[in-house]
Amino acid sequence: MRKILRVNMSDLSLAWEDLPEKYRFLGGRALTSSIVCDEVPPTCHPLGPSNKLVIAPGILSGTSAPSSGRISCGGKSPLTGTIKESNAGGLPAQKLGRLGIAAIIVEGKPKDAVFRLLKINKDGAELIPVPELVGKGMYETNRLLWDRFGKVGIMGIGPAGEMLLTNAGISCNDTENGPGRYAGRGGLGALMGSKQLKAIVVDDTGAPGVHIANKELFDTGRKKMVKALTSHAVTSQALPTYGTAVLINIMNEAGGLPTRNFSSGRFEGAKQISGEAIAELTASRGGAGKMGHPCHPGCIIKCSNVIPYEDGSYHVAPLEYESDWALGANCGIDNLDAIAELNRICNDVGLDTIEAGCTLAVAMEAGLAKFGDHEAAIELLKEVGKGSALGRVLGCGSASVARTYGVTRCPTVKGQAMPAYEPRAVKGIGFTYATSTMGADHTAGYTIAPEILGVSGKSDPFDPNKAELARNFQATTTFIDSTGYCLFIAFAILDIPEGFEGMIESVNGVTGSDWKGDDVLELGKQWLKMERKFNLAAGFGPVHDRVPEFMKYEKLPPHDTTWDVPDEMLDAVHDY
Amino acid sequence: MRKILRVNMSDLSLAWEDLPEKYRFLGGRALTSSIVCDEVPPTCHPLGPSNKLVIAPGILSGTSAPSSGRISCGGKSPLTGTIKESNAGGLPAQKLGRLGIAAIIVEGKPKDAVFRLLKINKDGAELIPVPELVGKGMYETNRLLWDRFGKVGIMGIGPAGEMLLTNAGISCNDTENGPGRYAGRGGLGALMGSKQLKAIVVDDTGAPGVHIANKELFDTGRKKMVKALTSHAVTSQALPTYGTAVLINIMNEAGGLPTRNFSSGRFEGAKQISGEAIAELTASRGGAGKMGHPCHPGCIIKCSNVIPYEDGSYHVAPLEYESDWALGANCGIDNLDAIAELNRICNDVGLDTIEAGCTLAVAMEAGLAKFGDHEAAIELLKEVGKGSALGRVLGCGSASVARTYGVTRCPTVKGQAMPAYEPRAVKGIGFTYATSTMGADHTAGYTIAPEILGVSGKSDPFDPNKAELARNFQATTTFIDSTGYCLFIAFAILDIPEGFEGMIESVNGVTGSDWKGDDVLELGKQWLKMERKFNLAAGFGPVHDRVPEFMKYEKLPPHDTTWDVPDEMLDAVHDY
Repeated sequence: MRKILRVNMSDLSLAWEDLPEKYRFLGGRALTSSIVCDEVPPTCHPLGPSNKLVIAPGILSGTSAPSSGRISCGGKSPLTGTIKESNAGGLPAQKLGRLGIAAIIVEGKPKDAVFRLLKINKDGAELIPVPELVGKGMYETNRLLWDRFGKVGIMGIGPAGEMLLTNAGISCNDTENGPGRYAGRGGLGALMGSKQLKAIVVDDTGAPGVHIANKELFDTGRKKMVKALTSHAVTSQALPTYGTAVLINIMNEAGGLPTRNFSSGRFEGAKQISGEAIAELTASRGGAGKMGHPCHPGCIIKCSNVIPYEDGSYHVAPLEYESDWALGANCGIDNLDAIAELNRICNDVGLDTIEAGCTLAVAMEAGLAKFGDHEAAIELLKEVGKGSALGRVLGCGSASVARTYGVTRCPTVKGQAMPAYEPRAVKGIGFTYATSTMGADHTAGYTIAPEILGVSGKSDPFDPNKAELARNFQATTTFIDSTGYCLFIAFAILDIPEGFEGMIESVNGVTGSDWKGDDVLELGKQWLKMERKFNLAAGFGPVHDRVPEFMKYEKLPPHDTTWDVPDEMLDAVHDY
Repeated sequence: MRKILRVNMSDLSLAWEDLPEKYRFLGGRALTSSIVCDEVPPTCHPLGPSNKLVIAPGILSGTSAPSSGRISCGGKSPLTGTIKESNAGGLPAQKLGRLGIAAIIVEGKPKDAVFRLLKINKDGAELIPVPELVGKGMYETNRLLWDRFGKVGIMGIGPAGEMLLTNAGISCNDTENGPGRYAGRGGLGALMGSKQLKAIVVDDTGAPGVHIANKELFDTGRKKMVKALTSHAVTSQALPTYGTAVLINIMNEAGGLPTRNFSSGRFEGAKQISGEAIAELTASRGGAGKMGHPCHPGCIIKCSNVIPYEDGSYHVAPLEYESDWALGANCGIDNLDAIAELNRICNDVGLDTIEAGCTLAVAMEAGLAKFGDHEAAIELLKEVGKGSALGRVLGCGSASVARTYGVTRCPTVKGQAMPAYEPRAVKGIGFTYATSTMGADHTAGYTIAPEILGVSGKSDPFDPNKAELARNFQATTTFIDSTGYCLFIAFAILDIPEGFEGMIESVNGVTGSDWKGDDVLELGKQWLKMERKFNLAAGFGPVHDRVPEFMKYEKLPPHDTTWDVPDEMLDAVHDY
């Protein structure tokens, strides 16, 4: 039976609990959200003693299912005040899965000012004071932890999390011990910081491995998934070759690439920061640079990359589409090395790159730097790690800068910055941003697939009738986020029925559940309803399910469209 | 017929409109809130073009009714996001009343970056660019405006309002042209700043005066009010002699004087900052110092004061209980000269003193200064005027500092800081803070009267059954806030029936309304319902009608009580 590790920071006690029967078939997001809904008072202060940080590997994490090494972090978000699930790749999920750990629940609040580390291995867990790591960036932290504990999985926070900044993320280390795999969104690094937990190290040496209820069924499902991923054009060609930044040119062409703080849908420098340009740069510089880099062992999509300095030495990994856009186009910056450096600073200080890029853009709108001035942007971002007043404002995200500097053009929903798709040019993604239980979040319901990419059918991006589409994408996503599979399997399973079957069979094979195809949508809706119930109790209602006002009266070039979707259509998303 | 002056900042046009029939009997808060509810979209950005600043003198302002020179400022609050009415004394209300102006509505947003001044006299109104006043503090601004326009009434914003900081207030000048009469709460100075309106000057030379429908009735009512105010102990003795700070010793004795960021209900330095100490200081230093200073001509309560420097020269006016407490006890500061200086800086930069004091206390909690270090507090507050990042964070109020520095002990409701009464020690005022349509605001329903002062009956401060009390106080207050009478008439009219009659008769005498005694509560409830409807549409519900979580689990010395009022009791306040 899988276990829950309960870590009480108030009295520094650790307890192992059997996974309750009601959670038996759950993993990842379904499990973190269930525990948060069961144990966290919706109106509590996100940084107070009543909030809890819940960490759960996906159901398949630690098995041989392809691309299934995702870990979910949950809690009440310090950034949005809503429920939050933020997931990442890297090493920790698989190692926790192999140790038979369904979830870690970190609760309470220390009475002292000591930061600690949680060490987990097959023999148990312990809390270790780590004063020597306080204030350290994630690169150094990871290095020191591998020196001390071997090639463990690491979840950690940088100075941003220690300082309780609401854009702090939780870093997961990758195969090269880089800290770039972030459960970034929603400020869960600040929640971890409020528990004074600097890091969690997971050593799976001698671990029993994931218990698989029906090996044959699991294997059948796994193989179907491998086949789907290796045969779909997006997962077998576009993503491994150009990485996620293949979307830069596509979104720019569609007029939906938010530029200079969402003031245009086209960026004149798009070509210079495109996935094609990244591929060319890694190829021409050689050295550490590469495309097709997996974020965790066993990933066969390998959409990631390593960006080298000019001399070929390692600079940052990965540089994803979202980071490339946020720190690039959205700040008017077209210099890949500068973008890589901004990304590296985010990874080191411990910030979500989407929020950080949008924050810099709002800061530029406020006059703190000129759009396109990458040197000024780097200096601004460095302030966060210094803990200056300016750095703290920036480290608290876009809405923080907007409030502090009186900027009305703030592209956030529920206080969380919008990702790299303009809702005025692609209406469906605006539905997702507005109505997601998480604040603006593209991964909550990636309608870009049919609206722009022609995956799982085609849908006119300007058509405002997207409630059903958004609802179904959000529900399906909630299910995928619970399996441990990377969300990118969606491209393949939505187009290839056997891939979809494979997902369900592999999940049923592990836990012994008997879910059918139709259950995916139904379970997803059920979990969304549960998350929304938390949000309603926390004070969020339809009024908060809206895009920012300026998008309603300001036309977006090049299509000169506004956000003209009636509120009733947005509200219809919740008709589960 | 009274007029509305509509000022469109988008096209810089001015229009005079007859007061619509539906607003015929309204003034002050009832009028600002009605116009805001009718014209401002509840979900708009408070600093965007859709919000409006509405200014209305009370019904009686400009008449010979005693203590009736209050002016209401309304809009969607940049601080709280709720509807807001903030009222002040000073010269402007009476002058606007005498010009026959029921309300000024400032709407739209300039297309340029020019700050302007709105000049109003008997011949009309005009907008005048005032680049020379940009960045100027309110003391210098007021001096320059009297030099240029004579002894006009002035409403203006300091650098805080220009910078759109959410704790910026709107200053009204007093008889000596001091800027210390503030419509301070809720950040309406930032709303005025977003319209790029530096000041409004009102010249009532040759004005026709307030039209009085029934002179005899008005006079009967006025006389009853004079008699009540001059015979009640609070309004005829305590307030004129010691000022509002007479409450320092009283609240300290009751264990309800919030100290060092609401961590105790008793301050060991209370005596040094008490009303008695202020009276002694003004008496011993002489010079400009005085007690019994009226905030506007015709006030017979005269609760205000002028604090002199050691050499007797003018330092600041007034130093009220709330400011004295916020900048004193709540910061652990017991030095009256330092408190006066902090107050002067607030007046000059353009900040609400309650919010500013709570902000400094939260900043102290965050480690930016030590509690009690008045020199550090002065340096911190000076940052606001400089517009540094730290200054902006401080200028945006307590919740802004708490968010930026990760402080969970933030004594706000709906983002607005609590005034000088501890809800854990005086439950009824907690009901008002939690359920008011305005965020935490003692003036919204001053249950301190029966709970501590024994005015209008007696009520045990620890008894949690206060829904009805809070409801009735809030409703009555809403009525008083609409008349132009100072809220302090409440002490007299709640104890003396003829005073209550006098209030209604004087109001009926001016507008020709036929309101009876029972209408006061009914009209108040009706207006509260209207304001709450705005808030519900803006996204506020019962969940937001709560005191901060830390007060529920942290005991307050000396009584060691927590906030233990069930949520259902709070929600019952809205059963109008």
